[in-house]
Amino acid sequence: MVVKVYGPMCACAKRVMVCLTEKEVEFETIHVDVFKGQHKEPEYLKLQPFGVIPVIQDGDYTLYESRAIMRYYSEKYRSQGVELLGKTIEERGIVEQWLEVEAQNFHSHAYNLAIHLLFAKPFGITPDLKLIEESEAKLEKVLNIYEERLSKNKYLAGDFFSLADMSHLPFTDYIVNTEKVYLIRDRKHVSAWWDDISNRPSWKKVVEMDKAPI
Amino acid sequence: MVVKVYGPMCACAKRVMVCLTEKEVEFETIHVDVFKGQHKEPEYLKLQPFGVIPVIQDGDYTLYESRAIMRYYSEKYRSQGVELLGKTIEERGIVEQWLEVEAQNFHSHAYNLAIHLLFAKPFGITPDLKLIEESEAKLEKVLNIYEERLSKNKYLAGDFFSLADMSHLPFTDYIVNTEKVYLIRDRKHVSAWWDDISNRPSWKKVVEMDKAPI
Repeated sequence: MVVKVYGPMCACAKRVMVCLTEKEVEFETIHVDVFKGQHKEPEYLKLQPFGVIPVIQDGDYTLYESRAIMRYYSEKYRSQGVELLGKTIEERGIVEQWLEVEAQNFHSHAYNLAIHLLFAKPFGITPDLKLIEESEAKLEKVLNIYEERLSKNKYLAGDFFSLADMSHLPFTDYIVNTEKVYLIRDRKHVSAWWDDISNRPSWKKVVEMDKAPI
Repeated sequence: MVVKVYGPMCACAKRVMVCLTEKEVEFETIHVDVFKGQHKEPEYLKLQPFGVIPVIQDGDYTLYESRAIMRYYSEKYRSQGVELLGKTIEERGIVEQWLEVEAQNFHSHAYNLAIHLLFAKPFGITPDLKLIEESEAKLEKVLNIYEERLSKNKYLAGDFFSLADMSHLPFTDYIVNTEKVYLIRDRKHVSAWWDDISNRPSWKKVVEMDKAPI
């Protein structure tokens, strides 16, 4: 059964696609045109009532929220592809801790920078300079803690690549493509970590898919 | 080994305590006085570098982020106390989906209402009326989707109580103690769900602990 991933052109769907690739799960993408408002149409809302991307269909199983989907496939195919949850319950605890740090401490600031520095024009938004400045300052503090952590561990959850690192890929990729790239590059260990995780074949495949015409 | 829970007087620590209670895990609480800034002191930052509450210590294992801690104990004591993750990988997927909905769609609006309606004075904040209005409107939309979901399922992830429901307890409790209680009470199925989950002995125990003098 090929997994259907709705909405391949957004950051959160990329999180799902890179996970499926690492777990060697075959998938196909179904384009949801957010500029035409397809994510708010009744057919889509039946799958994802909050009207956001992505959602997956796997036979008659439907699931949304990118981090939940990543956890589901990492557990379902535990012995297939790369182990992304850690080997023990204690390791998984630390993976979950850093997945939550990504979701609660990193994401909103990175999201604000991406929207206002990269996507203001296509989304018809006037860049909010105050919000950019605030988000940048907050992200600096968060990344200082990452720098400390990554000076002692190769990856966020320890010495193994996990969902915690993976979940950072889409929005860190946006940041390094803005004028705020220094946030990553001026921190030695964060910079090396980014080079490591962004050079994985799984992420390179997703980046190539993103460049392909719809 | 008795689990140490740092910071019992905040909502996120309550999430951890109600989970430990349902899983029948013995714990003790260690008071962190946020009004005195103890959560920003070097000793605390060694345990939780972001300077937020809670963190747990279980022997030499330290873990932070309340939802990560809940997942850890639900998995570690899978066969002890109430099953909170669902019985199958597919059920756990749906639990994770609604846990993420709580974290991404419900939490920030509920947090804004709690801070500006209940805790503005102790935290020395001037209530932001515009933010209250916006958060209320956004939470209405989210709760409309909950109402639809709970009209077909007794609990968020299906017909079983899970971490997804549990994670809503602290901030829904705040909301029903504000003038915005109608957000819960005007929705028949959300209201019945709230009565159900808030009457569990585990939550009643946490509420009693909250009333006790430090």
